Formats: sequence, structure tokens, C-alpha cells
Amino acid sequence: MFVHNQRLQYTVRVAEPNPGLANLLLEQFGGPQGELAAAMRYFTQGLAEDDPGRKDLLMDIATEELSHLEVIGSIVGMLNKGAKGQLAEAVEQEADLYRSLTGGGNDSHVTALLYGGGPSLTNSGGVPWSAAYIDTIGEPTADLRSNIAAEARAKIIYERLVNVTDDPGIREALTFLMTREIAHQKSFEKALHSIQPNFPQGKLPGMPEMAKTYFNMSQGAADLRGPWNQGDEWVYVESPQPAVDGGTGMAAVDLPSKDEQALKQMATRTLSDTASNPVTGADIGSGTLHKKTA
Amino acid sequence: MFVHNQRLQYTVRVAEPNPGLANLLLEQFGGPQGELAAAMRYFTQGLAEDDPGRKDLLMDIATEELSHLEVIGSIVGMLNKGAKGQLAEAVEQEADLYRSLTGGGNDSHVTALLYGGGPSLTNSGGVPWSAAYIDTIGEPTADLRSNIAAEARAKIIYERLVNVTDDPGIREALTFLMTREIAHQKSFEKALHSIQPNFPQGKLPGMPEMAKTYFNMSQGAADLRGPWNQGDEWVYVESPQPAVDGGTGMAAVDLPSKDEQALKQMATRTLSDTASNPVTGADIGSGTLHKKTA
Amino acid sequence: MFVHNQRLQYTVRVAEPNPGLANLLLEQFGGPQGELAAAMRYFTQGLAEDDPGRKDLLMDIATEELSHLEVIGSIVGMLNKGAKGQLAEAVEQEADLYRSLTGGGNDSHVTALLYGGGPSLTNSGGVPWSAAYIDTIGEPTADLRSNIAAEARAKIIYERLVNVTDDPGIREALTFLMTREIAHQKSFEKALHSIQPNFPQGKLPGMPEMAKTYFNMSQGAADLRGPWNQGDEWVYVESPQPAVDGGTGMAAVDLPSKDEQALKQMATRTLSDTASNPVTGADIGSGTLHKKTA
Amino acid sequence: MFVHNQRLQYTVRVAEPNPGLANLLLEQFGGPQGELAAAMRYFTQGLAEDDPGRKDLLMDIATEELSHLEVIGSIVGMLNKGAKGQLAEAVEQEADLYRSLTGGGNDSHVTALLYGGGPSLTNSGGVPWSAAYIDTIGEPTADLRSNIAAEARAKIIYERLVNVTDDPGIREALTFLMTREIAHQKSFEKALHSIQPNFPQGKLPGMPEMAKTYFNMSQGAADLRGPWNQGDEWVYVESPQPAVDGGTGMAAVDLPSKDEQALKQMATRTLSDTASNPVTGADIGSGTLHKKTA
Amino acid sequence: MFVHNQRLQYTVRVAEPNPGLANLLLEQFGGPQGELAAAMRYFTQGLAEDDPGRKDLLMDIATEELSHLEVIGSIVGMLNKGAKGQLAEAVEQEADLYRSLTGGGNDSHVTALLYGGGPSLTNSGGVPWSAAYIDTIGEPTADLRSNIAAEARAKIIYERLVNVTDDPGIREALTFLMTREIAHQKSFEKALHSIQPNFPQGKLPGMPEMAKTYFNMSQGAADLRGPWNQGDEWVYVESPQPAVDGGTGMAAVDLPSKDEQALKQMATRTLSDTASNPVTGADIGSGTLHKKTA
Amino acid sequence: MFVHNQRLQYTVRVAEPNPGLANLLLEQFGGPQGELAAAMRYFTQGLAEDDPGRKDLLMDIATEELSHLEVIGSIVGMLNKGAKGQLAEAVEQEADLYRSLTGGGNDSHVTALLYGGGPSLTNSGGVPWSAAYIDTIGEPTADLRSNIAAEARAKIIYERLVNVTDDPGIREALTFLMTREIAHQKSFEKALHSIQPNFPQGKLPGMPEMAKTYFNMSQGAADLRGPWNQGDEWVYVESPQPAVDGGTGMAAVDLPSKDEQALKQMATRTLSDTASNPVTGADIGSGTLHKKTA
Repeated sequence: MFVHNQRLQYTVRVAEPNPGLANLLLEQFGGPQGELAAAMRYFTQGLAEDDPGRKDLLMDIATEELSHLEVIGSIVGMLNKGAKGQLAEAVEQEADLYRSLTGGGNDSHVTALLYGGGPSLTNSGGVPWSAAYIDTIGEPTADLRSNIAAEARAKIIYERLVNVTDDPGIREALTFLMTREIAHQKSFEKALHSIQPNFPQGKLPGMPEMAKTYFNMSQGAADLRGPWNQGDEWVYVESPQPAVDGGTGMAAVDLPSKDEQALKQMATRTLSDTASNPVTGADIGSGTLHKKTA
Repeated sequence: MFVHNQRLQYTVRVAEPNPGLANLLLEQFGGPQGELAAAMRYFTQGLAEDDPGRKDLLMDIATEELSHLEVIGSIVGMLNKGAKGQLAEAVEQEADLYRSLTGGGNDSHVTALLYGGGPSLTNSGGVPWSAAYIDTIGEPTADLRSNIAAEARAKIIYERLVNVTDDPGIREALTFLMTREIAHQKSFEKALHSIQPNFPQGKLPGMPEMAKTYFNMSQGAADLRGPWNQGDEWVYVESPQPAVDGGTGMAAVDLPSKDEQALKQMATRTLSDTASNPVTGADIGSGTLHKKTA
Repeated sequence: MFVHNQRLQYTVRVAEPNPGLANLLLEQFGGPQGELAAAMRYFTQGLAEDDPGRKDLLMDIATEELSHLEVIGSIVGMLNKGAKGQLAEAVEQEADLYRSLTGGGNDSHVTALLYGGGPSLTNSGGVPWSAAYIDTIGEPTADLRSNIAAEARAKIIYERLVNVTDDPGIREALTFLMTREIAHQKSFEKALHSIQPNFPQGKLPGMPEMAKTYFNMSQGAADLRGPWNQGDEWVYVESPQPAVDGGTGMAAVDLPSKDEQALKQMATRTLSDTASNPVTGADIGSGTLHKKTA
Repeated sequence: MFVHNQRLQYTVRVAEPNPGLANLLLEQFGGPQGELAAAMRYFTQGLAEDDPGRKDLLMDIATEELSHLEVIGSIVGMLNKGAKGQLAEAVEQEADLYRSLTGGGNDSHVTALLYGGGPSLTNSGGVPWSAAYIDTIGEPTADLRSNIAAEARAKIIYERLVNVTDDPGIREALTFLMTREIAHQKSFEKALHSIQPNFPQGKLPGMPEMAKTYFNMSQGAADLRGPWNQGDEWVYVESPQPAVDGGTGMAAVDLPSKDEQALKQMATRTLSDTASNPVTGADIGSGTLHKKTA
Repeated sequence: MFVHNQRLQYTVRVAEPNPGLANLLLEQFGGPQGELAAAMRYFTQGLAEDDPGRKDLLMDIATEELSHLEVIGSIVGMLNKGAKGQLAEAVEQEADLYRSLTGGGNDSHVTALLYGGGPSLTNSGGVPWSAAYIDTIGEPTADLRSNIAAEARAKIIYERLVNVTDDPGIREALTFLMTREIAHQKSFEKALHSIQPNFPQGKLPGMPEMAKTYFNMSQGAADLRGPWNQGDEWVYVESPQPAVDGGTGMAAVDLPSKDEQALKQMATRTLSDTASNPVTGADIGSGTLHKKTA
Repeated sequence: MFVHNQRLQYTVRVAEPNPGLANLLLEQFGGPQGELAAAMRYFTQGLAEDDPGRKDLLMDIATEELSHLEVIGSIVGMLNKGAKGQLAEAVEQEADLYRSLTGGGNDSHVTALLYGGGPSLTNSGGVPWSAAYIDTIGEPTADLRSNIAAEARAKIIYERLVNVTDDPGIREALTFLMTREIAHQKSFEKALHSIQPNFPQGKLPGMPEMAKTYFNMSQGAADLRGPWNQGDEWVYVESPQPAVDGGTGMAAVDLPSKDEQALKQMATRTLSDTASNPVTGADIGSGTLHKKTA
């Protein structure tokens, strides 16, 4: 159960109204790397998590992100307060206000004002928040990696937002929020490493050879080598070839004998009841389909 | 520039048509963890990347993911081929076909057939693919973490899909695709570690104290401790308090003197031109706004 | 600031797993009338509200809706727990599980299981939650009416969900949640009536005659009369006509003299600098545009 | 069946082209409170409505909203006509035009012009219209409340748009459209009151005690009381507590005897076949699941 | 201005309720090829069209599509009427009804019933209608081609829907609607051909050589030739090459002298103030940028 | 299988950075008529196509569109490179940069920069790319018409983009891309005409009379006649009437005897088992439903 305290988690000081800045800050209210996305990512994971420790961790951070959502939304409201204040005055002044804001054309923050000046669940470009931002899949080692990445992205967006304003109170509050992302990222790293082994995720091991092959699919002068495709751990395929129809489909890779053995074992398990003339990729344009012989 | 070879990267054998399975496999064609999302994540990063090595890495893998998109789309087409084949026959048989597929009600794969039986850019529930799935933000150490997480999620979804079918040819092709995600995840890990330091991302360091504080926001019997909130690296706040209005906003944390110093320096830089009576969070409901004195 | 208590607001008892029912209940987790939509509607209004009493009301209810989101999400998780439990077993059993769930085809709850069995922010049809569900516009008498309507809709959806299950524990929890919507609706009604006058909303009064005219735009045998278009308050226009080009545009209405006067006054204020040959609706296809004479 | 008359419902006079204003007016063409949303809300309700009087009312207003959609779309087209006119000239002038419109950067109305200058089904920020805006649920007393709220919101948006322009012809047309929302709101109010009783909506009465309880979930200095949580109708819970596991789940409420009786009766009906050891909310993290004993 | 007649454009006879079929028919109510998409496509074009003849054509057909929307929505309502009828009975029967509909799992039509059984603006898979379906761009020869294509697609979807039902009344109504798409397609074809020349659309002619080149980007055994890449009109590039850095960027094409001349003329006009060392595509990874010399 | 060459298909020269222009060009990167939409339209068609010639055509063009996506994305990156370059400098300069870009308010290109300055999969207004843009339905003569229309629209958008910039290198690259759309449109036209007959699409012929009727649904002074509703091929219905309840539903059309015969034959086939008292459209509000007599 949630309880709310009427004070913010962090005191916010705003020097003066600035609807354009308010609009940019919506990025962390209703944007993809924003606080609602963070809260809902951890909350949905926490609800489904069976491990009590990780469940507590996820709920701790989900709750804090909701408090951050409140902080950033409060800043947006304060930056629009002047506009909102004038909106409470006479009609003529309101028109002046809008015209002063629109200037020569129409900026996206005017749409935000049209909706009343409060924080709206959109990004800074006016796109409504979508649960498509949430990448929870219910597997802890994958989800924790998603969380680490999400905190890393949020940290960068906060950094960019700090750099677009001179208002010291807003810079301080954004710096607080940015720093908390660093702390959360660290917690998620620790939680991931407390699960061993954590790579590869899940239960199926994959084809041994294919897990160490690097295909040089983008070719040219800059085919550079680095730790990501070089060294004992990698088989580098200079010029990858498509599957040879009817073959193993891995023609481009010279399989060492021990992996070949492993693959054969897998094949035995999975391919045992294959029809003798199955449909292949190369047949896909031919209009024929070989029904499995019963 | 892209070039296409008419053969698939991996030979696909399909034992018999199965529109329901075809529909589930759409998850990796047009779903959030699917191959188009992967290809576009790396492609948008690669276009913006200045480092030639990482650019090559991103383009290599983006291109391979497009080839995987083709593999999974080909499987979907083959699994629907029987339906499509009968669609080419007389009208009466077509009606029979549809009725046999719908059974007692309406399943989502019928919608897919309504669109012609080819692979459509939706997830297995019929939701159209959205660029909201792409989390590229143009900062390499954040983006590489996003890539690691994305590959981890894709691996798990493939694993679950392997488990919903007995068709050995499809299991083998899905296992190949799953294994490639493992290889890509490894490459992105290596690329991330080749950038040092890579944490925290970006240039702003954050408030030192806040980067090591853990707030116990979710309280109860199961307030468990683990490496994510325990040990020398962490200040554990048992019962977090909101900001004291007008104070530093960090009342719940007992700041050690050295961090206090660092924060003051930051404050000096950013707060120097603050008005003497700025608006605070607590004022937000009061309808007053203190304009910055010029 | 939000704080979380690890116990739910209402105890949930689930008799046995039921992934199909879990999927239906997602309607109130991530659907348009669900608890996240409710929480975010009131939260965004509360952040922007200047009146301390209404702000407190909105935050009270927003917080409770978050607690309801947790209750409904917990039920979903429990109903999927059997599936999730078996997912922790051997691979072969997992495949059996999925096949038993899919039956002859593909149902949308299988997509939900593909995502790990936890509650996902979608409606019962798998559509991701969207901030387009939130209708906050920052004007209290309009927003309170939106809240009343939203609670009314949520009450009905809960009622329909109560009727799709026999599980007594779930029926009881859903009845609790349904009842709270009734209580909230009552609170919002009271808050609306405490603002007087509250109709019409806003500051502009509108054209007096047009506010009492009813246009019979849908014509036929069933042109029924009721309190919505009958009585002293209404001018009923049997056969509405379009505007007469160049005229007042209100040709279908026989304006009483006193309203005509009011309209003329408004016209004086707003039309004083109109060009003598303005563009009219009828000109829109003619390709000419009369520039305002400076 | 619909029939169209080539004249508008209300004559529109536009003083001079203004693409920025055109863009803002799109809010009521393709925005959430706009005329298409209104028309489709009433049209979908009307198609499903069994009561002939309310069906006629809904179709009358749906049809009028389509006519308003045409009015607002015509204004948008006229305001863009200058741009469109120049677009019909030489290529060089077109480039000049665009450059004059974009000024120093890129404003959202330029995207609108890129699409040809006609009205597009987006809001003023360029977001495509979505049926997620429609909240029809097929229950008359809930739907009529949704309609009242929708008209209230539309009235406010029109008022704000009136205030952003000096063009007297546009102000007059917008005032006409705004006034019609007032009239529609009144009609829907009358129709709602003609259904008695209309509260609570639907057939299930809810838990009597819970319908009169107010939970003070947001706590602090401003815990204000008002008609929404004060008086004989309300039980005010100062400090709400979560459910006691295994208990009634309503520990925070002191149930008066008569309501306790009613709840018991309901419990008898719904809980009669509960298993003796059901899963509870507190068990959700423990990994065990008690199967209903058959 | 629109006027509505309470009778449908085409009489609908429904033999018996069938919620599953109702759900499939939603495809043409709120799906991408459905009647709202058609109506809004032509309506937005008509509002922006300056030619009186084409404007009338577009408004004629837009209005008819709205009438079709009403026909298809009425069928959906009638097919759900049994469910809705039983919903008006006792609560226990309602529960029975839902259970009978869900069968062993959850089908998407249950979500539709959850919303009250009326037609909802979604496709048959439950995806909300989106203005992203509308492809109006305000250029008549392009828009008319879009309309021809849209009618062709709608015809096919209707044909598939005819084939999923035996109900003769529904088959007849769907056949009527399908036939009208054929008629509309013919009208749009005639309107397109009445504009001469209509290809290429717009004012800029393009690079003469590039307009007749065919790049064989997908290579393999099935590099087939047909009228789309064979004959005097085409230059077939067997093995397309990327641009040579610093060259013309069209290295793969052997430019005939007369076209080279035309390109040079264009280049003279557009390239005259190019800097001597401009940034090229090949430089994009090098981190340097040559500022235009003023 | 796809392979990538590190050089672009067409050399791009950019004179100087221009984030506003970069943002406009996103229209063809992630907009509805952009290159990803084109590539995915043809790719999904190609995967499902059984005819080897058309499959090759679709894959050729899909692959080229991916190469165009890379060209346009590279331009966007280069136009933002200055901003990105400065982003690599000190924090203070970054802040200056952002402020210089935002000017007096907030423009949508600032959101793009917030995401790092690389190409993002949005249109020029910031709306994320959606698969709702893809209109593939798996019927060649309909899909080829969709392709022709899509190329026509893309050509126009490129033309408009050419006109918003003076940069000769960008104008040349955009002209190349525009010209390729002309070539593709021609190929699709040829492919459509190589299928005979291709109208009407599909197998069902429709009601003969209804295929030649034109309903004058939009009435007024400008009821113009043209080849789309005039001549031997058309029956022009001046004043269309709704269906007469219980009649044929085609009361407004005077059926010639030969067509009447055809319709009767169809009726015989489809209406043979109709109940004697079927539900009609006019009954829809009456609450009764006649069950089919078995």
C-alpha cells in the first residue's frame, strides 16, 4: 500500500517562470527515460518477483521514482505558474499572454499551455507516455540488465537538462535526481552480480559454435577489430555466406570437431521426427508445401 | 549501402502449417524484443557513432538482425502457407478454411490471416511495431548497456518460443537466432568494457553523498539487506523523510563534512545569482510567485 | 513524497491459477478505465491544483488508486503463478504447459505469458497503456466532471469483471475496489458542487441563443422529445439549415430581440477591425483570398 | 444514413492567413477534446443504444459534431491558404515561403505544411488522433457522465483558443462552436437526470461501509476537510492501514453492526466454497500456491 | 453541414447473435482499411481541395463512407445483441454468459464485450483506430492514387469477411459495401486520369537517368526480368555499387551524354556556392566538419 | 540475407550544420512516407509473395529503400554534427549551445537534440514511427496499387523538402532520392499491368448495378459532373435515399432487368436459408431479436 506525504522528497526553488523550460523538463515526467517509466518498470517487476530481497529492492526504488515524478512535475507546474497565474486574470490579458508566448509561430510548449499549464504525461515533444517504454519480461537477470541500462539513459538525459538552464534551484534539483539514478544503477548492478551464473540468461545454452562467431556483415575499408570480435573467444567470419539450401545452414563456419559433436546431439534430440522432404527457406517462393507424413 | 542475397542466413525447415504458431512467432518479427527493434536500435546508433570501431560493430550487428528478421518472417509465411494456399482455391473452400480456424470464437491469429497470411509488423498480440521500442540516446556507454539488456531480453523470448513448439526445424532455427543474441550480447559487453571509465556515464559526477545513499521507501517485515544496500559503499536510510521546506532538502541524510564541502562548491557555482526569496516546492499551492529580482 | 508499505490495502485470496482470468483482469491494471489511468489522472491534476483542499483530495485519491493498482496487479500475478511456477521446472514441462494453454490456437493471454506472467501495463486485449487515456485539462470544474465520469466507468468495468469469475476471494477484492470507485465518485461530486457557480465552466458565457438551441440533425420516424430538447429552456429547430453565405450564419434560428442585442455587442467588440471583403466559408473552394487591408 | 450539404453550419470569415494559428486550431480538429472525438463518442454510443429517445439524442449531437469538424477544418484550410496559394507558384518562391515560415529553426506548424496545408487529424502538437480518446463503455448513466465531462473540457479548450487570436471572424466562429458545447452539456445533463436512480451506476451495490469511507492517504499539514470527506455521510480514516493478513482486510475501518451484517450476507454468497487454506496477498512472494481442494 | 437520416443506407438482416463474428467485422469499423479511415481520408482531402469538381467528389464519397460506417457498426451491435440482451437480466445469468463466451481461455471478443457490446473503434484484434492510417498529403494526383489503393484494399478485406460467414443477410450487406468500394475506386481512377499529365506528381522532374535505372539490389538465382526492369525504358544495373567518395555518387551508372548535360545544368544551379572541401558521406565517422566558407 | 557496404549509395555533401533542417529531414527517416516505411512495406510483401518475379522486384526495392534510409539518416547526423561536436566539449559550452538553439522558447528539434543528435525514428514533428503506416494486405494487385501511391506521396514530400533548403549538396542528394521514387513507381505500375485482369481485385465480382452507381451524397450549388460520375458507365443518383425497411435496401436505384437477374441469382445462393422474420436495421433500437428458426 502506498502512503503520500505532502512534502516533496527534495525542496525545489524556481527563480522565475519559463514555459519553454517547463516543456523541456516534461521529458523526465512523461518521456521514455522519465520517472513514470522508471517507476512502472520496477513496480511491474516487483509485483511479479518471487525473491523477497529483490522484490523489496524493486519496490524501494519504484516508490522513490514516484516521488521523483512528483518533484519533476512540481517544477513544471512552478515554471508555468506565471502563465497560469495570468490565466486567472481577465480575458484580454490572457490573449496577450498567449500571443507573447507564441511569438512569430507556434511552439510545442503552447500546446502544453493549452492543456492548462500543469504537467502532462508527454515527452518534451508532446508525445503521450506509452507502456511500450516498459521492457519488463519477468526474468530477473534480463530485467536487471534492463534496469541498469534505463538508469544509465536517465542519468544522461538529466545531465543534458541540467545544461539547458541557468536557474540554480532547478539545476540543483535536477542534479539530485540525476545522482539518484547513479545510486539506483549501482544497486541494480550489485543485485545482478549477486545472481550467479547470470550469463547467458535463462536455461537453454544455445549452439556452442554460434555463440562465439562474429559475422562481418558490414564490409569496407573500416572493418576494424576490437575485443568484441578479436581474440581466442571469437571465430571471425570475414565474408559471411547465406545458408546452403538443404545443408546445415551454417556453411560459412568451419565447425571444430568438439562443437560439431554437441550440435549433432542437439540435432538428434530435436530433429528426430523431421519429415524426409521438409519445406526449406529456398522453397518459400515455389508455392509447394510438403505436409508432414504422419 | 545494403545488398540482399536471395538465400536466407539460416535454412528453415517447417514440418506443417500452423497459423497459431505463426502468430506467436510474430513476437520476434514485430514485437518489442524482436528483430526489427534490434536492427533499428543498432542502425540508429551506428549512423550517429563517431568512433569507427564501434560504428563498424553496430553496423555489422544491425545488418545481421535484418537477416534474422527475414528468417523469422519466412517462418511465419511458411506456417501460414497452407492457409494461403487454400485461399487461392475456390471461394467456398476459403470460407470453410476460415471457419475451421476460428473454431468457437475469434483468435488473434485470424486477424493476421485477414491481412493475408504474410508476416505483419505486429507483436504476437497484434499490436503494431512502434519506434517507442527503440531506446537509443546517442551516448555510447548508455547505449551499449541498452544493447546488452536488449539482447538479454531477446534471448529469453526466443527460449520461450522454442518451448512452445515441437517442430524440430523451427526449434533449430529459433535456437540459431537465440544463440546469435548471446554472441551479440558478448560483443556489446566487450565494447562497453573497452571504454574506461564507463561509470557513471556522461560528464557530471553527481552529488557524492546521494550517489551512495539507499532509501528504504518500501517498508515492512521484508526489509531485506543485500549487496545492493549494504556494506561500506552504502548509507542506508531506514526511514526516509521528505525535504524540510526552506532547508537543504536533504534532511534525511547526515552529510559527512567532506561531501558537504563538495556540495557547497557546486552550490556556489550554480546558486550564485539566486533571488533571496525564491519559490519553493512548499509554495506551489499558494498562488504566489516571486519574480527574480533583476 | 510517496512511501510504500509491503502489505496490500486489501487482502487477496486466490483459489487457483487461471491465466485466462488474469488476462481479463489486466483491463483494470493497464486498461483505459484501470487504476494507473485513475492514479495519473488525479496525480497530474493534484500537482497543478492551487486550491489546498482540492489538492489534498486529489492526492488522497491518487495515492489510493496506486494502492489499488498494486492489489489488481497482485491478483494477476497470483493467477499466473501456477504457470510461472512450472516455468521454473524443466524445459520439457514448460513446453507442455504452453501447449496446454494455447489449446487449438493462440489466445491473447499467451502473449501475456510470453512476457513472463507478471502484470503488464496493457488492457485485457494486449494494448499498451497510453497517456491518451488521461483527460486532465487544468480547469477544476471540467476536471472534476471528468473524474466523476471516470469513476462511473471504472465501477461498471469492475462490475463486469466480478461477473466473469466464481472465485470468491477475487470477487470480494474486486467488490472492494468497485466500491471505492463509488466513494471516490461521491467525493468528486461533492467537490464539484462546492464550487459555485460551476456551469458553464470557464469565463466566456457563449452566445445566449445558441446555448438554448437544439438542432434536430438526425431525422426520421423516431424524432423523440425529452427533457434534453423540450420545455421552456429549449428552442427546438426541427429542420436545421446551414449558414447563409455572407449572412449571420445563424439563419436557421429566429433570434429574439434581446439576444440579438447581446450578439451585436459581442460583434462590436470582436469584429471592429474586420476587412470589408473577408474570406467566407463559401469561398473556400474558389482559390482566392482577400488579404486584410492594412 | 448521412447526407451532406455543401454549405457550412456556420459562416467562417478569416481576415488573413496565419499558419501558426491554423496549427493551434488543429487541437479541436484532431485533438483529444476535438470534434472528431466528440462525434465518434456519441456515434458509437448511439449505434449501441436501445432506448429510442437517447439514441435519437446521441445521433442528433453526433451529426452536429461532424458539422463542427467541418467548420474547424475549413478554418484551418483558410488560414493555410496563403501558404498553399504560394505553393502553386514557382519553385523558388516556395522555398522562400518555407524559409520564411521556419525562421530560425523548426516549428511544429511546418510539419503540418509539409503535409500539404490541409487539416490533418492531429492535435496542435502533431500527435495523430487515436480512438484511445473515446471512453464509450455501453452503460447509459456512465456514458452520459462521460459526455457531460467531454463537453465541459471542449468548452474550456475553445475558450482558450478564442483567447489566442484577434481575428474577429475566427473568434465568432469559435464562440459559436464553444456555445454549442454548452448546449450539448445541458442536454446530456437532462438525459442523465431522466434516468432514475442513476447512482451508483450498474446493478451491484458495493460494500455499504466502503462506499462511505474516506481514506486520508496523502498526509501532512494540509489535511483539509470539505464536503468530500466531512459530515454524516462519511467515515474519515485519519491514518489508513494496510490489510491484516488473514483478517478481513478492512482493519482500518470500525464496522458498525448493521453493515457488518450486510457484508456477512455477501460473504456467505460469494465465499461459500473457498478452500480452507487459500493463497493470500502476503504469500505472493513465497513461491507456494495452495491448490483449491476439490 | 451533415444531416442524418435514421434509416440505414442498406437494410441489414442478422440471423442470430455471434460475438466472435461481430469482433471480426470490427475490422471494417475501426480497422486500417475500414470505413472511418475511408471517410476521414476523403473528408480531409475534400476540405483542402480547391478544385470544385474534385471537392464535390471527395465529399460525396466521404459522406457515403460515414453511412457505411453506420451500416457496419449496426451489424456489430446486432451480432452482440444477444449478449447485451442477457446482460440486462440477472447478475447470475450474466456470469454464465461471460463464462460461456470465454470457453477455455480468453478471446479478444471478450474484451469487446467488456466494453459493452457496442461497436468500438478498434480493428478485429482490438487495436484502437489511429489517424496514422490516413495518408492524405494535399497533392491531388498523389492523393487520388492513395484513394485508389485504399479502395482496392478495402474491397479485399470485405471479400475475406464475406467468406467467414454463412449468414446470408450479413453476406448481402457486406457484398453491397464491397461493391461500393469498386465503384469508388473507379471514380477515383477517372478523376486521376482527368488530370493530365499526372506523372510524375508535382513540379520537380528528377534526374533523368536515375528515373530509368533499375538496381538489382537483391541478388541470387531468381534475378528475374519483367516489364518492371526490362526494355528500352530501363537501364538495368546488374551489380549496383555504392558511391565513390568525392565522385558523383553515381559510379554504377554510365551516364549518356545528354543526361549528363541536364545533370550539369542542375548542378550549376544548385551547387554554385558549395565549399571546395565539403563534408562527404565517407567523412561521417571522422569527427571533422568543414564549415561553409562565407 | 542482407550484407552492408560501409559506403553510402549516394555521396552526401553538407555545407554546414543546421539542426532545424535535420529535424525536418527526419520526415523521410521515421515519417509515414519515409524510407523505413517504404522498406518495410515492400519487405513484408516480398516475404509473403509466391510469384518469383514479383518477389525479386519487391526485395530489390526494399533493399534499396534501406540504403536510402541510411543516406537520409547520414544527412541528419551531419546536420547535427556541429551540435554533437560541441557536446563533446566542456559543460559550459554545451549549455550555451542548447540556449542558442532554443532561443525564446522550445522548438521540436531541441527534443531531437536531447536524444543525442543522431537520427531518431520519428517524423519531423517528433511522432515515433508506427507499423500502422504499413498497408500490406497480401493481395498483389491491391498491394501494388498501395506501392504506387506510396511512391507518389514520397516523391512529393521529397520535393517539398528540396524546397526548404539552399544547401546544394543536400538538394542534390534529396533529388536523387526523389528520383528513385519515380523509378520505383514506374516499376510497380509495370508490375501491376503485367497482371491481367487486375480490376476489380480479388475473386468476388460485386453487385453489378452497385458497381456503376454514383450517389450524390454531398448536395448544393456545386454538384459538378465529371468523368467520375458521368457517362454511359454511371448511374447518377441525384438524391440518394436510405433503405426501405424490409425491402431490398436499394430503393433509390432503378434496377435494369439484366442486373436484377444477376442479383437474384446471388440472392438465391446466399439468402436461401434466411429465417422468415429476420432482424432488420430498423429493429436495432427495439430490443427484440428474432432467433433463427432451426
